Order: sequence, then structure tokens, then C-alpha cells
Amino acid sequence: MTNAMHKAAVGVFDSGIGGLTVAAEIARRLPEEDLIYLGDTARLPYGTKSAATVVRYSERAVDLLLRYPVKAVVIACNTASAHALEALRKHTDLPVLGVIEPGARAAAAVTRGGRIGVAGTEATIRSGAYQAAIANALGTSREALGDRVVTRPWPLLVPLAEEGWVDHPVTRLTIETYLAPFVEADIDTLVLGCTHYPVFKPLIRQVLDDRFRGHPMTLVDSAEALTTELATLLAEHDLRAPARDGRRSFFCTDAPERFGRVGTVFFGGDVAPVFSVDL
Amino acid sequence: MTNAMHKAAVGVFDSGIGGLTVAAEIARRLPEEDLIYLGDTARLPYGTKSAATVVRYSERAVDLLLRYPVKAVVIACNTASAHALEALRKHTDLPVLGVIEPGARAAAAVTRGGRIGVAGTEATIRSGAYQAAIANALGTSREALGDRVVTRPWPLLVPLAEEGWVDHPVTRLTIETYLAPFVEADIDTLVLGCTHYPVFKPLIRQVLDDRFRGHPMTLVDSAEALTTELATLLAEHDLRAPARDGRRSFFCTDAPERFGRVGTVFFGGDVAPVFSVDL
Repeated sequence: MTNAMHKAAVGVFDSGIGGLTVAAEIARRLPEEDLIYLGDTARLPYGTKSAATVVRYSERAVDLLLRYPVKAVVIACNTASAHALEALRKHTDLPVLGVIEPGARAAAAVTRGGRIGVAGTEATIRSGAYQAAIANALGTSREALGDRVVTRPWPLLVPLAEEGWVDHPVTRLTIETYLAPFVEADIDTLVLGCTHYPVFKPLIRQVLDDRFRGHPMTLVDSAEALTTELATLLAEHDLRAPARDGRRSFFCTDAPERFGRVGTVFFGGDVAPVFSVDL
Repeated sequence: MTNAMHKAAVGVFDSGIGGLTVAAEIARRLPEEDLIYLGDTARLPYGTKSAATVVRYSERAVDLLLRYPVKAVVIACNTASAHALEALRKHTDLPVLGVIEPGARAAAAVTRGGRIGVAGTEATIRSGAYQAAIANALGTSREALGDRVVTRPWPLLVPLAEEGWVDHPVTRLTIETYLAPFVEADIDTLVLGCTHYPVFKPLIRQVLDDRFRGHPMTLVDSAEALTTELATLLAEHDLRAPARDGRRSFFCTDAPERFGRVGTVFFGGDVAPVFSVDL
């Protein structure tokens, strides 16, 4: 038996277009679910903004999603997950999932040597949210973790992805520069703590092989980890949609033409229909 | 004889910190002038936003500057100059200067072969404002210009500047990639149509020498051209400040700590005091 809640959509919120990698993973693994995606393109990037501003913007974005029939909210933005998850969980009774806790739990589960790296935006790294979530997943304290968790901002990968330089010599050299301190710190598991980064997974693996003699490093994609937790959550609450082709709709707060065009790189398919909204 | 208007400040507005290169040039050439700088860091970058949004944000920013004793307004942002200059000139009776017209006039004055290139953000290039201003400065029409003006977006230079990679191999390779189509089109004068770009002038010259056999290319820095026009305008209207050490104050709409820290790269000196404001 299905009711309105089964058929309600999963709401996905991001500061822009990067969260489409998360939407793509949900669409791939849970194709029967309706998706409503909101990218706050008028106010991106969140990665260089203060915590208070990120909370304010995130609450307004979730308010927009809640105007539609929605059964769960996914914060597909690491910066918003870092700063606003707690506030958003108070803001609505619906389940709210961020990308950081699933990514941290996945890293804790797969690490062999216990040396975990996290790459993300300036704001995500500065927030310390991944360090806290990894300590939590390992059942220890942040102090006890010591230098076993190494974090670094990789700000250039976002504009490189949006430029479409997914396999460009400039990107290769940037990744080489960014990977060096992680290899030096001998980390064995790297969390890609920004939704733009998964498009670079093949290149990161190539650079590890070519420039760092195949240094073994498991890449953790938070979108995959989150989707696994979302599937479990919907099943546990008896909220899975019936078998059908889920519908997708996309909202953005500015420049819908660019959103649709650049978004296909991240969604891996047509981003349509796109609607413009003002928050 | 000096009155209140002589002593009033020059208001400088930018979407973020890049406009500090313009403020720096004004401070260097007109050290007696007070400067009030506003960087709209909460809503940057403007370069990927729609024209209507840029106009709305710019009007709010100028309203803030007008709360202070100001005698002229400088739009130290190419995107805002491209989209909002006309609207802002209707918005206030004070003289308003953008960076595009002075840059275009300077390029028209220095070109030898009449082949001019313009590099800028996506929005600046898409607006066609430089093409129109250069045609105007050359006393011709855009159609008659044909392929003598070549324009290209260089979006990666902004994050590279903010990462502090002013002389990094990644930046060198990016500039090489970005310069190639201009060299191929045999342009002799290149307008640096984004306020972040002047910090890369030495590297651009090096890359032209090392990789393009010293292809002759005059670099036009819009900040220099604008400051020359500002000095003339203040003198003509009898608005120059008396001999003194001008005071500088800086406002931004988010993340003042980062503004002060990253801003020193662009201002070439201490950015202080910094005040937070909400628009």
C-alpha cells in the first residue's frame, strides 16, 4: 500500500551545481524516487562565507523545498552540512541528511592504516566538521585522533570543474600539488569532501599512479555514502517510492541557462526542466 | 579654498576583493584622497550571475556608499561596470566611473596594429561591453570592428589569485593555455578586463617571452586607465582633496577576516580598518 508520503519527493539542496553529483547518485541508485533539486546559484559559493551567513541562506533554501511535497531533505553541500545541519534539523520535522556524517562513517569503515585525509573547501575544512565526524565514527575524541586525520582545502577544483577542465594538464598539475601533502603524511583513505570533486576521481587515481608510484589511497565519495544511508532511512521509515520512473525537477536562484549547461557535467545527463526562483 | 566636497571621499565598489587593485592604484596616484571601499563578499562572484541580479546588487552597494560623504563613485568591478553602469548613473547625481570605458579608451590609444584582445570573467565577456566601448573609442561600429577585437573568458585566474598562486607552475600553464588563442589571432594589445588580473602582469609577460617567442603584446590595466580619468574628472570639477594623507576605510558584507588577509595580495599593503556591513 502506498500513500502520499511514499510518493513525495526527496528534496536536495546545494549552494550551486556541484550537488548534482549527489542528485545523480541518488537517481542512479533510487531511480523510482522523485527528486526536487535546488541550487542557490545567486549566492554561491558558500565555501568562502561565514558560518552565520551559511545557516541563514540554508534555512531559506530549505523553506523553499518544504513548499513542495517532500519526505526527506538532503544537504548536498559540504559547507552547508558543516555549518547548518544542526540548525536545519531544528528547522523541520522531516529527516535531514548531510554529506559529512556519511562520508566520515565510510572513511572510518574502509581505512586500513587509520590515516585519513579530507579535502574540501576552505569553509568545510575550517569548520572542523569532518574531523569531529571521523572521531565520532571511530569512537574516539578529536584530541585522541592527533595527526591521523589530515585536512586540506582544495579550492581550485571547483572552478576547474566548472571550466570543464576535467582532464586538462592544468588540472593534473593542480591535483599533483594538492595530493603531495597527503602522500607525504602517508594517508591511506581520502575523503573527497566537496561535491565537485567526484568528477576528478579518474584523474586523481592516474596522478597517484604516475606521480606518486601508485601510493595506495582509497577515495571516499560522500555522495555514494550518503545515498546508501538515504536508502536505509527511507526503507526503515517505510517511505520508499513504488516502482516507477521518478521525476526530476531543478530549481536555481540565478542564471538557469548556465545551470542547465554546466550542470550536465555533474549530473551526467540532461538537467531539465530548470526553474528560476527567488529566495 | 577647500569645502566639504573637496574633503569628501572617493567611494569604490567591487563584488569582492579584486577591486582592491583599483583602490591601490588610486591610493598610489592620489594619496591625498580619502577612500571608502565596499566589497560585496557575501554575494560574490558577480561574474556568473545574470545582468538583472548584478544591477540589483550594485544599486544596493552604491546606496551604502552614499550614506557617507562621497564625491565620486568608482565601480571597480568589470561585471558591474558592464551591466550596471547606466543604471547607477541614473541612481545618483554624483559622477560614476566604471573600469570598462577607460580600459577600452586606453587600448584604442596604444594599439599599433589595431588588433585588440580582451580577457575577463564570463559575464563581462558575454555582456559585449568591452567590444562596444572599444568600437566607440575607435569611432567605429561593432560590426565594422569584425574580428579585430578578440574576447575570451579567463575564469580560473580569480581563484588562482585568491589561492595566492601568483607565480605557481599551475598558473603559468593556465596563462599559457589562455594566451594561446590571443597569440594565434595575432593581437597586439591585451586588456586585462578583470580586477584580479593585474597581479599576474609579470607572469603574463614571462609566458609571452618564454612560450610565445616574445610575441609583442601591450597589457592594458584598466585600474591605471581609470585612475587617470578619475584624476582628470576631480580636477575639472574642482574636487581634488587638499594636500594631506588620505584615510582609507574598508567595508565588506561577509568574512571580514578573510577580506583583510587575502586583500593584502591585491592592495599591496595593510587592508585596515575592515568593517562588516549587511546590505
